[in-house]
Amino acid sequence: MGKGIVILGSTGCIGRQALAVIDSFRDKFQVVALAAGQNIDLLEEQIRRYHPRLAAVLDEEKGKRLKERVSGLGVKVVVGEAGLLSAATFPEAHLVLAAMVGIKSLPAVLAAIQEGKNIALANKEILVVAGKLVMEKARKYGIQILPVDSEHSAIFQCLNRGGRVKKVIITASGGPFRELPREEMDKVTPEMALAHPNWRMGPKISIDSATLMNKGLEVIEAKHLFDLDYEKIEVLIHPQSVVHAIVTYMDGSSFAHLSYPDMRLPIQYALTWPERWDNPYGPYLDLAALGRLTFEKPDEERFPCLRIAMEAGRQGGTLPAVLNAADEVAVELFLQGRIKFPAIPHLIEEVLGRHQKVEDPSLEDIWEADAWARRQIWALIEG
Amino acid sequence: MGKGIVILGSTGCIGRQALAVIDSFRDKFQVVALAAGQNIDLLEEQIRRYHPRLAAVLDEEKGKRLKERVSGLGVKVVVGEAGLLSAATFPEAHLVLAAMVGIKSLPAVLAAIQEGKNIALANKEILVVAGKLVMEKARKYGIQILPVDSEHSAIFQCLNRGGRVKKVIITASGGPFRELPREEMDKVTPEMALAHPNWRMGPKISIDSATLMNKGLEVIEAKHLFDLDYEKIEVLIHPQSVVHAIVTYMDGSSFAHLSYPDMRLPIQYALTWPERWDNPYGPYLDLAALGRLTFEKPDEERFPCLRIAMEAGRQGGTLPAVLNAADEVAVELFLQGRIKFPAIPHLIEEVLGRHQKVEDPSLEDIWEADAWARRQIWALIEG
Repeated sequence: MGKGIVILGSTGCIGRQALAVIDSFRDKFQVVALAAGQNIDLLEEQIRRYHPRLAAVLDEEKGKRLKERVSGLGVKVVVGEAGLLSAATFPEAHLVLAAMVGIKSLPAVLAAIQEGKNIALANKEILVVAGKLVMEKARKYGIQILPVDSEHSAIFQCLNRGGRVKKVIITASGGPFRELPREEMDKVTPEMALAHPNWRMGPKISIDSATLMNKGLEVIEAKHLFDLDYEKIEVLIHPQSVVHAIVTYMDGSSFAHLSYPDMRLPIQYALTWPERWDNPYGPYLDLAALGRLTFEKPDEERFPCLRIAMEAGRQGGTLPAVLNAADEVAVELFLQGRIKFPAIPHLIEEVLGRHQKVEDPSLEDIWEADAWARRQIWALIEG
Repeated sequence: MGKGIVILGSTGCIGRQALAVIDSFRDKFQVVALAAGQNIDLLEEQIRRYHPRLAAVLDEEKGKRLKERVSGLGVKVVVGEAGLLSAATFPEAHLVLAAMVGIKSLPAVLAAIQEGKNIALANKEILVVAGKLVMEKARKYGIQILPVDSEHSAIFQCLNRGGRVKKVIITASGGPFRELPREEMDKVTPEMALAHPNWRMGPKISIDSATLMNKGLEVIEAKHLFDLDYEKIEVLIHPQSVVHAIVTYMDGSSFAHLSYPDMRLPIQYALTWPERWDNPYGPYLDLAALGRLTFEKPDEERFPCLRIAMEAGRQGGTLPAVLNAADEVAVELFLQGRIKFPAIPHLIEEVLGRHQKVEDPSLEDIWEADAWARRQIWALIEG
């Protein structure tokens, strides 16, 4: 029996790559539960391949269909929010990989923490909207949150070198429009925005990379994950995506974490932590072949999302939840061709400006802020 | 009473910078003994400022003169090899900084290890010629060798991140002649070679940087210090001298250590290890201001010393001692204007080719090989 793994979001981009990692170490891991939103075709394949004891489907109707299809395979199929909770708290699980887009798995993640499971967190939204709640609970139950984002994994791996931290730098590729003049931002199409230069990712995060909102959300995530002041977090554009983060200590030493951009590496480290296992995927970094690594400050005028997100993070309360929800809807509207690319930050900023912040929000306050923000965006574009 | 520090080579470049570090933390350190080769003027100043209990002068005549000058100051002056030994084994010492050029302090360093003192090693020649002896003794007496070279300090700080090491990259600025065409190497003068682009260093190491012999010696040093196979050590030219070393792990993660080139930083880390203290010296790394970091493979045709050194290291035995002695004399001859710059590698290679290697050399064998190599060089240029 290997380490018991639960994957929330097994049919998504990160979930599939996590299963690819597990494929390389089949005897070391035991996939005990899988959960998906609605892609039951792929989930069925995964059940036949990994033989989890439990499978959860958020969409109840689809969950019922899956149940029929896999009857006799020895897997229990559960549905809806309650099903997600069952998966996250599955008794034989050592580690829960939270890899569902958005915040729908937040209650499941909190429940897993309460059951003493370590969390491999691929889902930055959870810390963005509820960082304080999640980290307090993690400390209370003595569990480890293991970052799966390459930048946060890099920071995590560069911390604890003794001494005090002066600064943490999160790098950003700059996305596909790093060099696009401001006046051409209007002409950006979803196809252009989905073509990320370095990373293979889902649509929402690809658009967030193009706007730099992704980096803004990552700053908020880093703040909570590593208990940092915003003043200590900096974003630098690094188009080669080889240096993922740099931690500078008060003694003048800086540590950088580098690797080729391949999500399997931070996923593997989160799954194997505190160990570090040999990589079966491919070539090791060849700096001479790369030749150079470049760094520059982000252009906040062309990419206002970074500033907007950091400001929402600094103000705290329910503002990050509003930021996250407004961004989700704005990105969806852009993907549907209903708004232009530069409208994404404008809409988000408008909604944030109208919000009456709740300090120290409960889970209820967060859901409410989320729903309120979504309504606001719709009111704005339909009004 | 602070941590008891002995500095072997207190009047040299590293010794003076170490005292500058100690100046910033006067209550944390106690300079208990100082040793110098012959610069008794500066040593007298240092005695008056740091009040060591013991001062050693290698040159016996000059030591006697110093004794008269500092009588009544409460410092005991000792001379010659025996004096150096007394300093290195001074009872109140916790840490001995070995910062004398060459291998004359090797017996003193071995004696310090035997007395259980940790060694801050600024003196790569000691590990080049007697790496096996020194490291075996360090293991036997359970002491820590703390590297002071920026590259080795960087490796030391990037190691022990879990998992197996795939590769260690030592960077080299490339020296002042990185871009000099081969046919102009003949015209290089000592003044040109002493003008190092990034580091403030003594003359021997500056010339060694210009020939890349310094990097070759560092590879041999790293091999012993970190018990690495030569196949795992690579040298890359990195003209900005900001990344000092990179350690790549088998999981695909690489860790780089970065800082502005300032010897006080690795000296301070060696003095304060296992702690990391705040840096009082100046600015923290600003990557956006630097803009780019470049890396390239060294040109072994224009800089044959790197290949020569690595080959001597691989063959082992007394060859690294011959390499080191031959280089010392060749550099001295170049500084005196008696040989041209490209003659440095030629002479060294010639001497190495004539040597009858002794495997697993004793200290005696090493001294003999050293003396033999020096005679050979003289025979070559005078014959």
